[in-house]
Order: sequence, then C-alpha cells, then structure tokens
Amino acid sequence: MPNQQIELDSVFRALADPTRRAVLHQLSQGPASVSELAQPFGMALPSFLQHLQVLEDGGLIRSRKTGRVRTCEIQPDPLATAQDWIAEQRAIWEGRLDRLDAYLKSLQETENGDGGNA
Amino acid sequence: MPNQQIELDSVFRALADPTRRAVLHQLSQGPASVSELAQPFGMALPSFLQHLQVLEDGGLIRSRKTGRVRTCEIQPDPLATAQDWIAEQRAIWEGRLDRLDAYLKSLQETENGDGGNA
Repeated sequence: MPNQQIELDSVFRALADPTRRAVLHQLSQGPASVSELAQPFGMALPSFLQHLQVLEDGGLIRSRKTGRVRTCEIQPDPLATAQDWIAEQRAIWEGRLDRLDAYLKSLQETENGDGGNA
Repeated sequence: MPNQQIELDSVFRALADPTRRAVLHQLSQGPASVSELAQPFGMALPSFLQHLQVLEDGGLIRSRKTGRVRTCEIQPDPLATAQDWIAEQRAIWEGRLDRLDAYLKSLQETENGDGGNA
C-alpha cells in the first residue's frame, strides 16, 4: 500500500472521534501540556493518553517531555493532505456537474435554435 | 452529542479506508452500479457491501435499486462538512503563526530602531 494511503487511513481514523478533534482544535491555538489538554474531558488519564497516541500515530501531533511535563503541538501537514484529498474528489464531482450543466444548456440552445428556424 | 459531531465521526470513519476512498473517487466521476464498483477490488461481495454500508452510514453515498441493479451515487455535503472542519483548524493554526511572525518582526524592528539611535 503506498505511503499516502497509509497516511490517509491513520489521519482520517484519528479525526473520527470528538475528543481527538477537540484536542486538535485546542492545539491549533498553540502548544499545550498533556494535563492542560486532558482537563476539559474528565476522562481517565490512560484513556486520554490513548487518544493522544492515535493522534501521534496519525502524525497530527508531536509531543516532547521537558522535566515532568509533556507538551504537545499540532503538525499541520497531515491535515493538509487530508483536506487536499477531499478537495480533489469534490473538484472531480463539481467538474462532472459543470459538464452535465453545459451539455444540458447546449441541448436547450439547439432546441431554441430549431424553434427560431421553424 | 451534537449532530455535527456524530456526522463528522461517521464521515471521517468512512474515509479511513483505502477501498472506501477508492469507491468515493470512482463515484465522484458519476453514479455506478454495485457490481461495477466492486469489480476492481477482487473482494468477497459481503465484505464489499459492508464498505458500501459504512459509506452510506456516513451519508457519503446514496443507493437505489432499479430491478436487480443497485446504483450508487456520491452525496457531496458530508465531504464539504469534513473539509470545512479541517480548513477551520488550519486557519486557526495559520492565524496563530501569522501573529507570532508579526510579533517577532515587531521585536526585530524595535531592536533595529534602538541600534539606529545608538
């Protein structure tokens, strides 16, 4: 499986959870410690750490430990990759609609043209 | 849990698989029957139908049966919702970088200004 496929699998998987999306939303505003990130959720720490691990596995965050504090920061490239993939499908779909629309218009013009000649 | 959260969960979950992404890519080019869609994968039909079900649960495709043929088509709105969510986080992140950049520049200008006065 190509690398980009693996990356998209793990990025989309990481995004498919409200806790993980909330963490990313928080980190998009700046780095934060694990305890700051965990605080709003009232979740057992091991469960919360598992969510962070899924985000880290998806390449969406990076963490480093300084003394006793682990600080997380967002890594924006995988988000861009995911956004690009979605944008590409939508562009193909919209291109198809545009062509369909142009085709229907051309049919209508032909009909109107015939009407004028009659 | 708000509806949009549920929708994002099921959309991102649906996107976290290469077969399902390939099906969406195919359907972005136009509606197709289940057998046309299944053909490239060499997968047991029940497994393939499960993938279609996950896509349908995520609201990403719709299918209808005419006689013995089930035809699927893409539903673009959930893709747009997912793309918007990602775009929003990236915009917040980039806004923060811009402010950081402006702050660093203002520091540098203050320093240069001091240098000029010395």
